[in-house]
Amino acid sequence: MKKGIVGIDVGGTNIKAAFVRGREIIRRINIPSHAQAGMDRSLQQIKLAIAPFKKKAACIGVGIAGIIDSGNGIVKFSPNLKGWNNVCLASMLRREFKLPVRVLNDVNAICLGEWKYGVARGYDNVFLFTLGTGVGGAAICEGRLLFGANGFAGEFGHTTITLKGPMCICGHRGHLERYAGAKYIVARAKRKMKKQRSRLADYDVLTPEIIARAAKQGDTVANEVFSEVGYYIGIGIANILALFDPDIVVISGGIARAGRVLFDPVRKTTRQMVLGAQHRHYKIVPAKLGDDAGILGAALFAQLTKKQALI
Amino acid sequence: MKKGIVGIDVGGTNIKAAFVRGREIIRRINIPSHAQAGMDRSLQQIKLAIAPFKKKAACIGVGIAGIIDSGNGIVKFSPNLKGWNNVCLASMLRREFKLPVRVLNDVNAICLGEWKYGVARGYDNVFLFTLGTGVGGAAICEGRLLFGANGFAGEFGHTTITLKGPMCICGHRGHLERYAGAKYIVARAKRKMKKQRSRLADYDVLTPEIIARAAKQGDTVANEVFSEVGYYIGIGIANILALFDPDIVVISGGIARAGRVLFDPVRKTTRQMVLGAQHRHYKIVPAKLGDDAGILGAALFAQLTKKQALI
Repeated sequence: MKKGIVGIDVGGTNIKAAFVRGREIIRRINIPSHAQAGMDRSLQQIKLAIAPFKKKAACIGVGIAGIIDSGNGIVKFSPNLKGWNNVCLASMLRREFKLPVRVLNDVNAICLGEWKYGVARGYDNVFLFTLGTGVGGAAICEGRLLFGANGFAGEFGHTTITLKGPMCICGHRGHLERYAGAKYIVARAKRKMKKQRSRLADYDVLTPEIIARAAKQGDTVANEVFSEVGYYIGIGIANILALFDPDIVVISGGIARAGRVLFDPVRKTTRQMVLGAQHRHYKIVPAKLGDDAGILGAALFAQLTKKQALI
Repeated sequence: MKKGIVGIDVGGTNIKAAFVRGREIIRRINIPSHAQAGMDRSLQQIKLAIAPFKKKAACIGVGIAGIIDSGNGIVKFSPNLKGWNNVCLASMLRREFKLPVRVLNDVNAICLGEWKYGVARGYDNVFLFTLGTGVGGAAICEGRLLFGANGFAGEFGHTTITLKGPMCICGHRGHLERYAGAKYIVARAKRKMKKQRSRLADYDVLTPEIIARAAKQGDTVANEVFSEVGYYIGIGIANILALFDPDIVVISGGIARAGRVLFDPVRKTTRQMVLGAQHRHYKIVPAKLGDDAGILGAALFAQLTKKQALI
């Protein structure tokens, strides 16, 4: 069998690994990450996910949530994985598999994947963010993934959009995540449901995806929720356009599949709020590759030199 | 005489030109820009500023406020220069002087200058902003100047820090420039002077520099002004750290020389507001090269290839 790359996406619940050649995913593995069972246990799971591919692999790329020192392959901190503080994952895996290993932030991996194989293909300046429990982000600037000085670049969710806004999980006020994080979208719907009838009342557990579906079906509460959340996201994107001036803004994560219910208010607010709209070209689009983006991006990153050129 | 580079900073009032070799400024010229007299007149002034150096020059770099297409040397729009819309300045000067010419945004030029020869030397990730009439910005990401898709990158002044804030000159609310632009700093002082005694009352015309001096001398109103303005700037910088994660944030422009009166509240707010302070290294410092930064940066840019490597 021809050589390929192992791309891995280590999440708080599952590890998704795949053996890939370029855009093509040859074989997949999906196992639990045992993220709360401590470092030894979750490291063992990562090794288990790689093992079936080791003989055919040329190198290994790992995407992982948290603050990553990608130059040295160190997980400085991960919110999902218990006990991972300043762990040199690259050297541990290198020892085990005798293969080159690179590690990067999971949203950076998604951004690389969408840039090389997905919706952001061919653009030099890309900003991608994920809507999920949290709001993560990543930027490609002048054709290079932006890591920043401390591996923190692209933290879109924790930018202030309003000084005296409500308190975010991080302890600061008015951050975008406080408006666009999944549980805050749900909380917004619940507040409205106390005052207005809504088909959302039929559900025991609400998710942003359920609210999006109800909005498409014409539910007033659900529509109001998305128009308000879309407004806040649009303000955030206007800030991104002011600072990064990307060719394309990509929204990733489950809610990004909501379609016009989300994208109409987002695009409208951005258009109204951005400086110099008449001098700009930009697009705001949903991601294309779904879960594959992170795997493909991690595999791609494994092949990049430190100067970010393909070997 | 050995060959050198012509570096030019075209402002709304003056054109500063110099003949430089690397960091060294061999000779300077300073002439009025006649910016309001229309394009022909101000173009003539630019040519006048270059003419004395033309025999010894290897190439020409021009920094100019506005939206610049640096790849093609086109001034798309300049707020300072009347009548400059989609003008290919590079080709006009190339025809006149038979020399390679490159054009870039003035704050980008300052950022390049401080990066190569000034306070940001040796860092891969730099964010610089200017405090003046407006609040401009520029970023160096992974060792490359960020232009963005439309020449808009780094527009720090027009990022929203509070949704329902006061109206900015651009027509949107709560932009950083609305708090940190020179006339808004002065207006803040004047509001306070109506309620409190201040030595600022001795001045017919107030500027941020005068207010800074009074603050250093212990004037209460002036100190309050800088502590409030510093707070807003600190919030803005926390957003920059979240998104770009620079090694160093450089504040340029006259007010940046105010010292601790400005930097203490800025640094305090940034430290309080930034995500993951314990995992970060960053510095917030004043620019070092003053007016020379723009000239040296423009000259440096003239020598860069389109891939941003030195020839």
